[in-house]
Amino acid sequence: MDIITLIAIASIVTAGLTIAIGGIGPALGEGRAVANALSALAQQPDAAATITRTLFVGLAMIESIAIYCFVVAMILIFANPFWNHAIAASGG
Amino acid sequence: MDIITLIAIASIVTAGLTIAIGGIGPALGEGRAVANALSALAQQPDAAATITRTLFVGLAMIESIAIYCFVVAMILIFANPFWNHAIAASGG
Amino acid sequence: MDIITLIAIASIVTAGLTIAIGGIGPALGEGRAVANALSALAQQPDAAATITRTLFVGLAMIESIAIYCFVVAMILIFANPFWNHAIAASGG
Amino acid sequence: MDIITLIAIASIVTAGLTIAIGGIGPALGEGRAVANALSALAQQPDAAATITRTLFVGLAMIESIAIYCFVVAMILIFANPFWNHAIAASGG
Amino acid sequence: MDIITLIAIASIVTAGLTIAIGGIGPALGEGRAVANALSALAQQPDAAATITRTLFVGLAMIESIAIYCFVVAMILIFANPFWNHAIAASGG
Amino acid sequence: MDIITLIAIASIVTAGLTIAIGGIGPALGEGRAVANALSALAQQPDAAATITRTLFVGLAMIESIAIYCFVVAMILIFANPFWNHAIAASGG
Amino acid sequence: MDIITLIAIASIVTAGLTIAIGGIGPALGEGRAVANALSALAQQPDAAATITRTLFVGLAMIESIAIYCFVVAMILIFANPFWNHAIAASGG
Amino acid sequence: MDIITLIAIASIVTAGLTIAIGGIGPALGEGRAVANALSALAQQPDAAATITRTLFVGLAMIESIAIYCFVVAMILIFANPFWNHAIAASGG
Amino acid sequence: MDIITLIAIASIVTAGLTIAIGGIGPALGEGRAVANALSALAQQPDAAATITRTLFVGLAMIESIAIYCFVVAMILIFANPFWNHAIAASGG
Amino acid sequence: MDIITLIAIASIVTAGLTIAIGGIGPALGEGRAVANALSALAQQPDAAATITRTLFVGLAMIESIAIYCFVVAMILIFANPFWNHAIAASGG
Amino acid sequence: MDIITLIAIASIVTAGLTIAIGGIGPALGEGRAVANALSALAQQPDAAATITRTLFVGLAMIESIAIYCFVVAMILIFANPFWNHAIAASGG
Amino acid sequence: MDIITLIAIASIVTAGLTIAIGGIGPALGEGRAVANALSALAQQPDAAATITRTLFVGLAMIESIAIYCFVVAMILIFANPFWNHAIAASGG
Amino acid sequence: MDIITLIAIASIVTAGLTIAIGGIGPALGEGRAVANALSALAQQPDAAATITRTLFVGLAMIESIAIYCFVVAMILIFANPFWNHAIAASGG
Amino acid sequence: MDIITLIAIASIVTAGLTIAIGGIGPALGEGRAVANALSALAQQPDAAATITRTLFVGLAMIESIAIYCFVVAMILIFANPFWNHAIAASGG
Repeated sequence: MDIITLIAIASIVTAGLTIAIGGIGPALGEGRAVANALSALAQQPDAAATITRTLFVGLAMIESIAIYCFVVAMILIFANPFWNHAIAASGG
Repeated sequence: MDIITLIAIASIVTAGLTIAIGGIGPALGEGRAVANALSALAQQPDAAATITRTLFVGLAMIESIAIYCFVVAMILIFANPFWNHAIAASGG
Repeated sequence: MDIITLIAIASIVTAGLTIAIGGIGPALGEGRAVANALSALAQQPDAAATITRTLFVGLAMIESIAIYCFVVAMILIFANPFWNHAIAASGG
Repeated sequence: MDIITLIAIASIVTAGLTIAIGGIGPALGEGRAVANALSALAQQPDAAATITRTLFVGLAMIESIAIYCFVVAMILIFANPFWNHAIAASGG
Repeated sequence: MDIITLIAIASIVTAGLTIAIGGIGPALGEGRAVANALSALAQQPDAAATITRTLFVGLAMIESIAIYCFVVAMILIFANPFWNHAIAASGG
Repeated sequence: MDIITLIAIASIVTAGLTIAIGGIGPALGEGRAVANALSALAQQPDAAATITRTLFVGLAMIESIAIYCFVVAMILIFANPFWNHAIAASGG
Repeated sequence: MDIITLIAIASIVTAGLTIAIGGIGPALGEGRAVANALSALAQQPDAAATITRTLFVGLAMIESIAIYCFVVAMILIFANPFWNHAIAASGG
Repeated sequence: MDIITLIAIASIVTAGLTIAIGGIGPALGEGRAVANALSALAQQPDAAATITRTLFVGLAMIESIAIYCFVVAMILIFANPFWNHAIAASGG
Repeated sequence: MDIITLIAIASIVTAGLTIAIGGIGPALGEGRAVANALSALAQQPDAAATITRTLFVGLAMIESIAIYCFVVAMILIFANPFWNHAIAASGG
Repeated sequence: MDIITLIAIASIVTAGLTIAIGGIGPALGEGRAVANALSALAQQPDAAATITRTLFVGLAMIESIAIYCFVVAMILIFANPFWNHAIAASGG
Repeated sequence: MDIITLIAIASIVTAGLTIAIGGIGPALGEGRAVANALSALAQQPDAAATITRTLFVGLAMIESIAIYCFVVAMILIFANPFWNHAIAASGG
Repeated sequence: MDIITLIAIASIVTAGLTIAIGGIGPALGEGRAVANALSALAQQPDAAATITRTLFVGLAMIESIAIYCFVVAMILIFANPFWNHAIAASGG
Repeated sequence: MDIITLIAIASIVTAGLTIAIGGIGPALGEGRAVANALSALAQQPDAAATITRTLFVGLAMIESIAIYCFVVAMILIFANPFWNHAIAASGG
Repeated sequence: MDIITLIAIASIVTAGLTIAIGGIGPALGEGRAVANALSALAQQPDAAATITRTLFVGLAMIESIAIYCFVVAMILIFANPFWNHAIAASGG
C-alpha cells in the first residue's frame, strides 16, 4: 500500500462525499426558494418580473455553493496537486 | 490486496454513496417545489404559464445538483483517472 | 480473501445501500408532491388538467433521481467494469 | 472463512437492509399521499374520481421505489451473479 | 467459527433488523393515513364509503412494504438459499 | 466460544432489539391514530360508530406490524431453526 | 470468559435496552393520545363517555406494545431458554 | 477479569442506561399530557372533574412504562439471577 | 486493572450518564407543562386554583422520573452492591 | 496505567459530560417556560402575580434537575468514594 | 504515556467539550426567551417593566446552567484535584 | 509520541471543536432573537427604543456563552497550564 | 507511509469535508432568506427596492461564511504551510 | 510518524472542521434574521431605517461567532504555537 494508492483512495472517497454532502444544502435551499417563488407568483402575478429576477439571483448564489463543492471534487479528481507530486516523486 | 483492488473498492463504494446521498437533497427539494407549484396552480390557475415556466427553471437548477453527483459517480466507475493510472502502472 | 471476493462484497453492499438510501429522498419528495396535488385538486377541480400534467412532469423528474440510483445499482451488479477486469485478470 | 461464506454473508445482510431502509421512504410518502387524499375527499367529494385516480398513479410511482429495493433484495438472494460465479469457481 | 455459524448469525441478526427497521415506516405511514381518515370522517360523514374504501386501498399498499420486509425476514430464517447450500456443502 | 454460544447471543440480542425498535413505529402510529380519533369524536359525536370502527380496523393493521416483530422475536427465542440445527449438530 | 458468562451478559444488556428503547414509542404515543383526549373533552364534554372509552381501548393497544417489550425482557432475565440450556450443558 | 466482574459491569451499565433512556419517553409524554390538560382546563373549567380524572388515568399508564424500566433496573442491581448464579458458582 | 477498578469506572461513568441523559426528558416535559400552565393562566385567570393544583401534580409525576434516575445514580455511587461485594471479596 | 489514573480519568470525563449533557434539557425547558411566561404577561398583565409565582415554582423544579447533575459532577470531582478508596488502598 | 499526560489530556478534552456542549442548551433557551420577550413588548408595550424584569430573572436562571458548565471547565483546567494529586505524587 | 505531542494534539483539536460546537447554539439563539426583534419592530414601531434595548441586553447574554467557549479555546491554545507544565518538565 | 503522504491525505479529506459540511448552513440560510424575500415581494411590491437591497446585503454576509470555508479548503489544497514545510524538509 | 507530522495533521483537520461546523450555526441564524427582516420590511415599509439598522447590528453579532471560528482556524494554520514549538524543538 504505497503512497500513490493511499492518495488515490483518499481523493476518490473525498471527491464523492464532497459533492454528495455538499449538494444536500443547496438542493434543499433552492427547493425552498423555488417553492416560495411559486407561492409568491400565485399571490401576486403582477410582480412576476421582480419575483423571477430576484429568484434567479438567489438561485445563482445558492448554486454557487454547490459549484464550490463540484469544483473541489473536480480538482481532487483531475488536478490534484498532491497526486501530481506523488506521481512525480515516484517517477510515474 | 494490491493497489488495483483497493482503488476499485473505493471507487465502487464511493460511486454508490455519492449518488445515493447526493440524491436525497434534490429529491426533497424538487418535491417541495412541485408541491408548492401545484398549490399555486390551484390558487391562481390564470398564472399557469408563469408558474410552470418558473417551476421548470427551478427544477432544472435543482436537478443539476443531482446531475453533478451522477456525473461524479459515472466518472468514478467508467473514467476514473486513478484507476487508469493504476492499470497502466500494473501493465494491465 | 482474494481480489474477486473483495470486489464482489463491495459491489453487493454498495448496490443495496445505493438504492435503499437513494430511494428515501425521491419517495418522500413524491409523497409530498402527490399529497399537495390531491389538495390542489380538491381546492380547484377545474384545473385538474394543468395540475395532473404538472404533477406528472414533476414526478418524472423526481423519479429520475431514483432511476439514477437504480441504474448505478444495476451497473454494480450486472455490468461492473472493475469486476470484469478482475475476472479477466484472474483468468476467470 | 472462504469466499463463498463472505459473499453469502454480505448478500444476506445487504438484502435485508436494502428492503428495510428502502421501505421507510415509500411508506412515509404513501402515508402522506393517502392522508391528503382522504382530506381532499372530505373537502371535495364530487372530485372523488379525479382524486382517487391521481392518488393511484402517485402511489404506483412511489411504490415503484420500494419495488426497486425489493427487486435488488431478491436478486441478491436468489439470482446473485457474484454468488453464482463463486459457486462455479469453487466447483460447487 | 465455521461457515454455518457465520451464515446463521448473519441470518438471525438481519432477519430481526429487517422487520424491525422496515416496520417503522409503514407503521408511521399507516398511522398518519388512519388519523387523517378519521378527521375526514368527522368532517364529511356522508362520504364515509369513499373515504374508507380509499383508506383500505392505501393501507394495503403501505402494508405491502411491511409485508416485503416480513417476507425477506421469513426467507432468511426458513428458506435461506445460502444456509441450504452451506448445510448441503457440509454434509449436514 | 463455540457455535452454540454465538448463535445464542445473536438470537438474544436480535430478539430484544427487534421488538424494541420495531415497536417504536407502531406505538407512535397508533398514538397518532387514537389522538385524531378523539378529536374526530369531539368534532362529530354523531359519527362515533363509523369513526370507532375505522379506528379499530386501522389499529389492527398497525398493530399487525408490531405483531410481526413480536413473532420474529418469539421465533428467534423459542423456535429458532439455526439453534435447533446447532443443538442437533452438537449432539446436545 | 466461558459460555455462561457471555450469555448472561448478552441477556442483561438486551433485557435492559429492550424495555428502555421499546418504551419510548408507547410513552410518546400514549402521551399524544391522552393529550388529545383532554382537548376533546374540553371541546365536547357531552361526549365524555365515548371519548374515554375510545381512549382506554387505544391506550390498551399502545400499552400492549410496551408489554411485549416487558415480556421479552422478563423472558430474557427469568426464563431464558438459551441460559437454561447452557446451565444444563455445563452441569450447573 | 473473571465472570463476576463482567456480569457486575454489564449490570451496572445496563441498569443506569435502562432508566435513563427509558425515562425520556414517559417524561415527554407526561409533559405533553399535562400541558394539554392545563389548556383544556383553561378552555372548559366546568369539565375539570372529567379532565383531571382522565389525566390521572393517562399519567398512570404512561408512568407504568417508566416503572417497568425502574423495575428492570432494580432487578438488575438487587435481584439479578445471573449475578446470583455466578456468586453461587464461584462459592462467593 | 483489577476487578475493583473496573467496577469503579463503570459505576462512575454510568452514574453520571444516568442522571445526565435521564434528566433531558423530565426537563423538557416540565418546561412544556409549565409553559402551557402560564398560557392557561393568562387565558383563564379564574381557574388559577385548579390549574396550579393540576400542574403541581403533573410536575410531581414527571419529576419522579428524574428522581428515579437520581436514585439509581446515588445507589451506584454510595450503595453499590457489586462494589461492596468486590471490596468484601478483595478483603478491602 | 494504574488504578488511580483510570479512576481519575473516568471521573474527569464523566463530571464534565454530566453537567454538559444534563444541562441541555433544563436550559431548553426553562427557555420555553420563560418564553411562554412573557407571552402570558403580554396577554393578561393583570394576572402578573399568579403568572410569575407559578413561573418561579416551575423554574425551581426544572432547575432542580440541573442541580442534580451539578451535584453528581461535584461529587465525582471532590467527594468521589471510589477515588478515596483507591487513594487509601494505594497508601496515597 | 505516564499518568500526568493522560490526566492532562482528559482534562483538556473534557473542559472544552463541557462548555461547548453545555452552552448549546442555554444559548437556544435564552434565544427563545429573548425572542418571545420582544414579541411580548411589541404586543403590550405598557407591561414593559414586568416583562423585562421577568425576562432578566429567567435569563439569569438559564445562564446559571451555562455558568455551571463554565465553572466545571475552569475547575478542570485550573483547580483539578486529580491533576494536583498526580503532580504531588510524581514529585512534580 | 512523547507527552508534549499528545498534549499539543489534544489542545489543538479541543480548541477548534470547542468554538465550533459551542458557536452553534449562540448563533441560532441570536438569529432567533434578532428575527423576532425585527418582527416586533414591524408590528410596534413606537416601542423601538424598548425593543432594541431589550434585544441588546439579550444578545449580550447569549453572546457571553460564545465568549466562554472562545475564552476556553484561547486558554487551551495560548495559556494552557498543562502544556506549560509539560514544557517545564521536559526542560523545553 | 511517510510524512508527506499523511499530510496529503489529511489535507485532501479535510478540504473536501470543509466545503461540503460548511456549505450546508449557508445554502439553507440563503434559501430561507430568498424564500422570504419572494414572499415579501409578493406582499409589498412597492418596497421592492428596499427588500432586494436588504436581501443582497444579507446574502453577502451569509455567503461570506461559505467563502471562509472555500478559502480554507483552497489554502489546504494549494497553499498548505504544513505541506510546504514537509516538502522542504524532505528535500522534495 | 514524528511529532511534527502529528501536529500538522491535527492542525489541518481541526482547522477545516472548525470553520465548517462553526459556520452552520451563524449561517442558519443569519438566514433566519434576514428572512424575518424582509418580512418586516414588507409589513412595515415605513420602519425600514430602524429595521435595517437593527438587522445589521444583529448580523454583526452573529457573524462575530463565525469570525471566532475563522480566527481559530487561521491561528491553527498560520500561527500555531504548538507547531512553532515543535519546529523549534526539532531544529527545523
